[in-house]
Amino acid sequence: MYGIPTTKSGIILRIGQCVFAAVSIGVMAAASGFSTTTAFRYLIASMGLQFLWSFGQACFYIQAWRHHINLHRTTKLQLFVVGDWVTATLSLAAACSSAGVVVLYTKDTDICSVETKLSCGMFQISIAFAFVSWFLLAISSHLMFWLLAIL
Amino acid sequence: MYGIPTTKSGIILRIGQCVFAAVSIGVMAAASGFSTTTAFRYLIASMGLQFLWSFGQACFYIQAWRHHINLHRTTKLQLFVVGDWVTATLSLAAACSSAGVVVLYTKDTDICSVETKLSCGMFQISIAFAFVSWFLLAISSHLMFWLLAIL
Repeated sequence: MYGIPTTKSGIILRIGQCVFAAVSIGVMAAASGFSTTTAFRYLIASMGLQFLWSFGQACFYIQAWRHHINLHRTTKLQLFVVGDWVTATLSLAAACSSAGVVVLYTKDTDICSVETKLSCGMFQISIAFAFVSWFLLAISSHLMFWLLAIL
Repeated sequence: MYGIPTTKSGIILRIGQCVFAAVSIGVMAAASGFSTTTAFRYLIASMGLQFLWSFGQACFYIQAWRHHINLHRTTKLQLFVVGDWVTATLSLAAACSSAGVVVLYTKDTDICSVETKLSCGMFQISIAFAFVSWFLLAISSHLMFWLLAIL
């Protein structure tokens, strides 16, 4: 089964989540004028949490893959499933609230064309990376939940 | 097992989703000035979809409960799980993007106190109902996924 701990695809998924979350934080932090909007600050906090979580999970997956850990005996699995779900929900919430604000800035009003010190393009890139990171986490999260149910 | 089809708690969960989604649509549609913001229009569309989906599911649950349908033989279960997940994700996305815009209106700027024709209080009530509706759908969605995995 692809994507679960003890498989290479699972490790790649987790590392992908870390990388995209880190890029999302970097691009948002580099964009000028992000700090005036709560949604953008929340995106950075949420992507920070996702980075830490996915990094920890990646370490566990690598350990499980190298030492052939028997997942039946892992009591942590329930904790991991809950943690995955909470992190994924917070990430989606952050990405969507930021996307709602960016749509307001670019489509509903002309704030982006008037306020030249706001880097709207960078906001959009950061949010796109956040969505990719969330999507990878959602895949991992569902696979872990499936694993918990069938074990 | 609580909350699955063929149980009363499952039917109550589905009807709860319908009711909260309908109230959310009603409050948002009654709020003045919602149509200028894309996020609020998207909330109405998404809650409309959730209302239709949950209503259909409620009908299926009532049928399953009355006629004691054997869920093992239900090939629709996979379709229902995917539909639940897509609807729940869209609902959370709509609720969060609207919440991001409302926080921008009330906290980051003083648009709500300046523009008196915007009913910011009603936006907040509508979004709160949307979150409750999403939360109930998330519970149903996880129970269905669990059911699919163990059957």
